[in-house]
Amino acid sequence: MSGQMTGAEMHALVARLYPLCRSITGDGLRATLGVIGEHLPLTVHEVPTGTQVLDWTIPQEWNIRDAYIKDASGRRVVDFRRSNLHVVGYSEPVSATMTLDELRPHLHTLPEQPDLVPYRTSYYARTWGFCLSQRTLDAMGDGPYEVVIDSTLADGSLTYAEHVVPGQTGDEVMISCHVCHPSLANDNLAGIAVAVALARSLERPRHTYRFLFAPGTIGAITWLARNRERVGRIKHGLTLACAGDSGRLTYKRSRRGDAAIDRAATLVLKGRPHRVLPFTPYGYDERQFCSPGFDLPFGSLTRTPYAQYPEYHTSGDDLDFVTPAALEDTLDALQAITGVLEGDRTYLNLSPYGEPQLGRRGLYDSLGGRSDTKQAQLAMLWVLNLSDGSKSLLDIAERSDLPFAALRAAADALLAAGLLKETG
Amino acid sequence: MSGQMTGAEMHALVARLYPLCRSITGDGLRATLGVIGEHLPLTVHEVPTGTQVLDWTIPQEWNIRDAYIKDASGRRVVDFRRSNLHVVGYSEPVSATMTLDELRPHLHTLPEQPDLVPYRTSYYARTWGFCLSQRTLDAMGDGPYEVVIDSTLADGSLTYAEHVVPGQTGDEVMISCHVCHPSLANDNLAGIAVAVALARSLERPRHTYRFLFAPGTIGAITWLARNRERVGRIKHGLTLACAGDSGRLTYKRSRRGDAAIDRAATLVLKGRPHRVLPFTPYGYDERQFCSPGFDLPFGSLTRTPYAQYPEYHTSGDDLDFVTPAALEDTLDALQAITGVLEGDRTYLNLSPYGEPQLGRRGLYDSLGGRSDTKQAQLAMLWVLNLSDGSKSLLDIAERSDLPFAALRAAADALLAAGLLKETG
Amino acid sequence: MSGQMTGAEMHALVARLYPLCRSITGDGLRATLGVIGEHLPLTVHEVPTGTQVLDWTIPQEWNIRDAYIKDASGRRVVDFRRSNLHVVGYSEPVSATMTLDELRPHLHTLPEQPDLVPYRTSYYARTWGFCLSQRTLDAMGDGPYEVVIDSTLADGSLTYAEHVVPGQTGDEVMISCHVCHPSLANDNLAGIAVAVALARSLERPRHTYRFLFAPGTIGAITWLARNRERVGRIKHGLTLACAGDSGRLTYKRSRRGDAAIDRAATLVLKGRPHRVLPFTPYGYDERQFCSPGFDLPFGSLTRTPYAQYPEYHTSGDDLDFVTPAALEDTLDALQAITGVLEGDRTYLNLSPYGEPQLGRRGLYDSLGGRSDTKQAQLAMLWVLNLSDGSKSLLDIAERSDLPFAALRAAADALLAAGLLKETG
Repeated sequence: MSGQMTGAEMHALVARLYPLCRSITGDGLRATLGVIGEHLPLTVHEVPTGTQVLDWTIPQEWNIRDAYIKDASGRRVVDFRRSNLHVVGYSEPVSATMTLDELRPHLHTLPEQPDLVPYRTSYYARTWGFCLSQRTLDAMGDGPYEVVIDSTLADGSLTYAEHVVPGQTGDEVMISCHVCHPSLANDNLAGIAVAVALARSLERPRHTYRFLFAPGTIGAITWLARNRERVGRIKHGLTLACAGDSGRLTYKRSRRGDAAIDRAATLVLKGRPHRVLPFTPYGYDERQFCSPGFDLPFGSLTRTPYAQYPEYHTSGDDLDFVTPAALEDTLDALQAITGVLEGDRTYLNLSPYGEPQLGRRGLYDSLGGRSDTKQAQLAMLWVLNLSDGSKSLLDIAERSDLPFAALRAAADALLAAGLLKETG
Repeated sequence: MSGQMTGAEMHALVARLYPLCRSITGDGLRATLGVIGEHLPLTVHEVPTGTQVLDWTIPQEWNIRDAYIKDASGRRVVDFRRSNLHVVGYSEPVSATMTLDELRPHLHTLPEQPDLVPYRTSYYARTWGFCLSQRTLDAMGDGPYEVVIDSTLADGSLTYAEHVVPGQTGDEVMISCHVCHPSLANDNLAGIAVAVALARSLERPRHTYRFLFAPGTIGAITWLARNRERVGRIKHGLTLACAGDSGRLTYKRSRRGDAAIDRAATLVLKGRPHRVLPFTPYGYDERQFCSPGFDLPFGSLTRTPYAQYPEYHTSGDDLDFVTPAALEDTLDALQAITGVLEGDRTYLNLSPYGEPQLGRRGLYDSLGGRSDTKQAQLAMLWVLNLSDGSKSLLDIAERSDLPFAALRAAADALLAAGLLKETG
Repeated sequence: MSGQMTGAEMHALVARLYPLCRSITGDGLRATLGVIGEHLPLTVHEVPTGTQVLDWTIPQEWNIRDAYIKDASGRRVVDFRRSNLHVVGYSEPVSATMTLDELRPHLHTLPEQPDLVPYRTSYYARTWGFCLSQRTLDAMGDGPYEVVIDSTLADGSLTYAEHVVPGQTGDEVMISCHVCHPSLANDNLAGIAVAVALARSLERPRHTYRFLFAPGTIGAITWLARNRERVGRIKHGLTLACAGDSGRLTYKRSRRGDAAIDRAATLVLKGRPHRVLPFTPYGYDERQFCSPGFDLPFGSLTRTPYAQYPEYHTSGDDLDFVTPAALEDTLDALQAITGVLEGDRTYLNLSPYGEPQLGRRGLYDSLGGRSDTKQAQLAMLWVLNLSDGSKSLLDIAERSDLPFAALRAAADALLAAGLLKETG
């Protein structure tokens, strides 16, 4: 149940989840959590239809068995069995014979990407529809067509799950992934796979780590509504999405803009191809965690962000769009970020007048005059110089431009030599 | 008396004022205020010679009827009737016959711009002089010349005028234009014309708008001396000058540097060709309004600024130098700036825990999954996210990079839906 | 004893000090202070071996008379008499016959700079060694060699010296130079020469100036240990090093980052080719002065900084590497920096409402309309506008981008006119 997952293993998890027809409620979502549960122990929550959650209400549960548009010859021109993107999420049931003109208001295409099928939903307004490629639409005759969506909308429940890795303290790091998208690999099966891999790699962490697998928007709102008393424990948070495409890593700051998570992520990404974006109230569930009533320190880690790649929310976001190497790279960055959160401490230099003589403590080269001072020695000088009880290792890393790990090691050596005292 | 003036109408006003011989006192100044008064109701103030105003004293009043340098043939080589720039402002009367050598200390030219006549004054040191082009001087023989300045310097008064548009509150926006320059179109008949146009376009504003038409330096000082008790009402101020040349718009910050007027102007100009300059204690009457005893939030709006164009303070600053299009563009920017000042408010999001469900209130598209979110929806999300009672719409505009008008409209929609409360 | 030293005079001082074999203790150091003492009255301190200074202990005193590696023919292959760099500083005595293979662990070369001899020391770990060029090493046969270092390590004392120029106040400016390097001209005979020149040029300064000539690290630590009660008097400090190479000037900020010395140096360097570097806890004795217990406002002025030139800590740092022009340029910048520290004051504008009428006080041109306002007038306007008791001339220089000297002159003129009052 623990250890480092490879990129190939993460990609295999993405591939296994890919065919399931997820939505914000329903059996596809439950099946998804079931697969995750094979990798991590999960606590699964079911919240009944009609429950008031903050300003929202849990909707009816949606399930679908089949859907198609069949032409006069009996051929399925559009077929849910080939791709669950073909049906607008939360479509009402329909069974009718219609001409193309009658059907047309219910058909969604991407005229500028004629080979791709769009992803569309209508959770909160009752309707039905099909998504198809422009090429398919262009080839359709006048009809009539047999139009079937074999779905149900009925009282039931909304499902979400949590996995908690207990830490030495009750301070929490929270990682949230939306799990409501059907066959879209990068958005967000890749995020789920990286979150699973992170959870499995944590060993006796200092912080408690809480992983939330919940449908977008309503899932985060439901969790917040049911956990209002405990949100104060969340010291650092991340939404994790679009974690497997080939683009560079992107960090979007929290609403606060300079929370520790913002600084840790910025520090880690500095050495890699990346972008850091300011907070915006649009995107993934950081929208909810960063709403002004909660204002939690939640950033968002992605590769190419929300709506910034042509395959976004289309059938182009498939298993080839996500690569094992990218998944591994995202996991590596994420582990470096949590490494900073885990290792950050504030110290007091106990020999603050002048430099302590490191040489007689075996911490400094005895041969002087050389110009190639080692990083380890620089790291000790930085930690000693700035450790006045007000600056943490993260502060020192930002100012010194040395790797956090080198400063962490320097602090350990100085602690062992009795030159530092931990103060926070 | 109200409605939008066109660029052509503003240019016509510039043209009508152009021939008048203005100075810091005298009948040319009164005639100028008379013309402005045909467009706006004015309160005209006369302050007697000798009145102490702050560190200064109202000087004697200067009036001039004629002036020339006539050669032996009786030809006016330099003639006040052709251009009032030909006489140094506040020249004492003179009537004498002089050789060119005797005249020369009283002649001002621009050797590097040999076709242009400079603008010169000597308000506070008694002297007399003529301004002429270098070409004219080069063509002058040894003389003798008949030299006449038919002027008077006598006790009288300094004249300035105010136009006030009462607002819903006593908080004032003050627009100040210097009105003391003779035939210089851009500096500052253009500023006067744009101020008149702004005043005429204001309808039931929130702020009270005070327009000051006064001679440079001494006029602003006189107004400040006579209004020391009321300067606290001025929440935002602008000096308006050089408003009609073809250069890009320029905003010079107030001494405070980040006053609301500075931020509103910067925001409005961001979308246009422009420059924003830091405060300097040199320029127009912001020098007085931003003196440390008053430290009023006064910026300066111009096109090409003070002394930055070759025609500055020369006969080249004529009616062709100012264009209707530039006047209109300045007015448009100025109205956008006052629009921000008028529309800026601070709100409290009444549903701050998570996002309120905009969809069921008809404020959000029902079809999900699309990546082309509309500006109006983004604007609502920004207003909701940042409206915690501490940030105004101007703050939100700066942070979101959305147009102020879009945020204003979003706030109105959210107010109508009961999701916001105004707090400031 | 006073007056401006020329670049040639400073270079002559460097040349005179160059041959002496300095270390952190010993007679070469004493001789160096003796030469400096011919230019400046010095107080010389001797601190006995074994004295505890902060976390350190004064080491034994090291003296050396001769050292060589002699081949079978009796030729000195490596000869201390040709360059004192050939012996590792603080080498124990040795007298032995050894093969090249036995010698090799005691030989230091620079393989990538094969013609240069490195500078190496081993103050705090007992060993011995020779430094030589890679070319010399490559030409050496298998041996045997006669190996002699005629040195002594014995109880004695550490020597340092101070020169103090008393000021009108007890507030101190401290200039510190390390004096422990043997034949390295730029690092730091050049710094010593510029410090001497500065000291000689000071005439009745406002601040008290303290010049410290001490061995690196242990010298600064010794001074700090013996002056803990008086460090509070140090308002501004500089370590001065590498002051004579042809590179541009470099200022390294203090740990505080925005101390007055940081701002004065930045201001002065702005008009010259230069670099400003952030603080790092590595470099010269600012490491000690800026340790967190003291946190003194000590910057570092160099030309090419610490370890950034190929000749650094090699025989290439010789008398040709340092030029009279560079020494003069460093002195000029240093005097401009102390000029800012000397001249900085805070004033209150006594006529803060509007501009005072400078014209009637003879401080302003009487002819108006000109666009070529003089720097002197701009400087007066800036001083009047910002002198509200909270901003010093240094603040005004930073904001106005005018030369500090122009603002100093403007303040003097305004003081004479009764328009300012000194407040700090």
